[in-house]
Amino acid sequence: MAALVNRRQLRIEWGQCDPAGIVFYPQYLMMFDASTGVLFARTGHSASEMREKFGIIGMPLVEAGVRFLLPCRFDDEIAVESHVEEWGRSSFTVRHRISKSGELAVEGFEKRVWASADPAKPGGIKAQKIPSEIVSALSSA
Amino acid sequence: MAALVNRRQLRIEWGQCDPAGIVFYPQYLMMFDASTGVLFARTGHSASEMREKFGIIGMPLVEAGVRFLLPCRFDDEIAVESHVEEWGRSSFTVRHRISKSGELAVEGFEKRVWASADPAKPGGIKAQKIPSEIVSALSSA
Amino acid sequence: MAALVNRRQLRIEWGQCDPAGIVFYPQYLMMFDASTGVLFARTGHSASEMREKFGIIGMPLVEAGVRFLLPCRFDDEIAVESHVEEWGRSSFTVRHRISKSGELAVEGFEKRVWASADPAKPGGIKAQKIPSEIVSALSSA
Amino acid sequence: MAALVNRRQLRIEWGQCDPAGIVFYPQYLMMFDASTGVLFARTGHSASEMREKFGIIGMPLVEAGVRFLLPCRFDDEIAVESHVEEWGRSSFTVRHRISKSGELAVEGFEKRVWASADPAKPGGIKAQKIPSEIVSALSSA
Repeated sequence: MAALVNRRQLRIEWGQCDPAGIVFYPQYLMMFDASTGVLFARTGHSASEMREKFGIIGMPLVEAGVRFLLPCRFDDEIAVESHVEEWGRSSFTVRHRISKSGELAVEGFEKRVWASADPAKPGGIKAQKIPSEIVSALSSA
Repeated sequence: MAALVNRRQLRIEWGQCDPAGIVFYPQYLMMFDASTGVLFARTGHSASEMREKFGIIGMPLVEAGVRFLLPCRFDDEIAVESHVEEWGRSSFTVRHRISKSGELAVEGFEKRVWASADPAKPGGIKAQKIPSEIVSALSSA
Repeated sequence: MAALVNRRQLRIEWGQCDPAGIVFYPQYLMMFDASTGVLFARTGHSASEMREKFGIIGMPLVEAGVRFLLPCRFDDEIAVESHVEEWGRSSFTVRHRISKSGELAVEGFEKRVWASADPAKPGGIKAQKIPSEIVSALSSA
Repeated sequence: MAALVNRRQLRIEWGQCDPAGIVFYPQYLMMFDASTGVLFARTGHSASEMREKFGIIGMPLVEAGVRFLLPCRFDDEIAVESHVEEWGRSSFTVRHRISKSGELAVEGFEKRVWASADPAKPGGIKAQKIPSEIVSALSSA
């Protein structure tokens, strides 16, 4: 099964750019985070439905990485393509590719955990098995 | 009784500036918000202590306003001076003045409410009378 | 002549919200700034074209204000409606209204200047007369 | 020669946290970026002096990575320790370690290039040899 790839078209905003006229790099991670949200909405469950139905508190990060190939500037149109490239038992890795005029500009990943609150530890979290319906909803036939 | 004025020294960060080389204006409101936090810590209670002791969920905004007199740039040293300029029963107004080399650069206000969760309305909030010890702690003799 | 109203549909992102679960208020000003950009793109000129054609360096802020009527939360769908409500010789005021399920949640304004670099003062800016074609492009018959 | 380690004490702000009550992860990269700025100020040159003296336009990113070990929350006091862990001819890697109450909470790196404008390509950049005085200023005896 191949992964479902979610594609978003965005336009770079003035407030995302720095005095060099290019995107301030942590802004790309904000795009990654929001794009993961939109990808998981493709399961047919909104974020709050997912939280209720599966008892999770979210999908906290374990690790992230990003490489910068071409700078993006204010008003550039970009495409963000996101898919889950690896499913573990309770963790998964989302790959994001940002392109501009067909050229790869930024690429990176987020490794996240499917997590519920830990009843044994106030404020703590506990990794949970990822439901198979989530995995299959984010795979394309 | 005069108001206690809290003063912070900050240095403008690269990521707070836009392609024109000046601070992206919503960043000043972020400085206002953080400065209100530091001002209220002068009551001797941390934010979480205030929440516990007084049963509030926070101090949500009703209104804010800001005027821009001089641009600030990356690496500029600025001073943020903040005080409560008006106390209502359950609302109050914080005045912020940002200066650079002794000149006023930005000034504005935040009108906020002293609020608890509304037991009658899930997700709702309810304005509460501001404790007199908060008012006096933020006044100087 | 009535003002042209630009309407954007947005969905509140996780990273725009604070620990109270509602939008961190400076984020609304970021939405205002981006919405002004989209409104002015309705002139038919992109931001960089406007800079080149009219010799401006941008539309820096003089003043902004915002009132908060209803909180918005993660994943809420909102509409941002923006129009120029007043044109001066070299300054103008943009009014923004953010609504959620048809109810007004946030409203505010930005007063901005149509500005070029000041040849007499390095790093300074100079207000310019707003071109009549900009004014008419942002008015609807 | 060992690397000079720059240490900053910061307090987590309300606006840096998300609805789960923990720091929104791209905010850590903003801390990294600002911390690199403060580290390089230890050369004795401000950012603008470095740009003027060495003809660089900045230190753009090639790659960044971050691992999350412990969540940080609003009002937590953290320490950010930063040093250059590897110097190449024209690129270098800064290592950042964020700790809370003595425990490592977040760690990551930024790989950056020492870059000037490319005279042959408008808007382009060109990697430059890092001046030896920069390397030695960021090394401790």
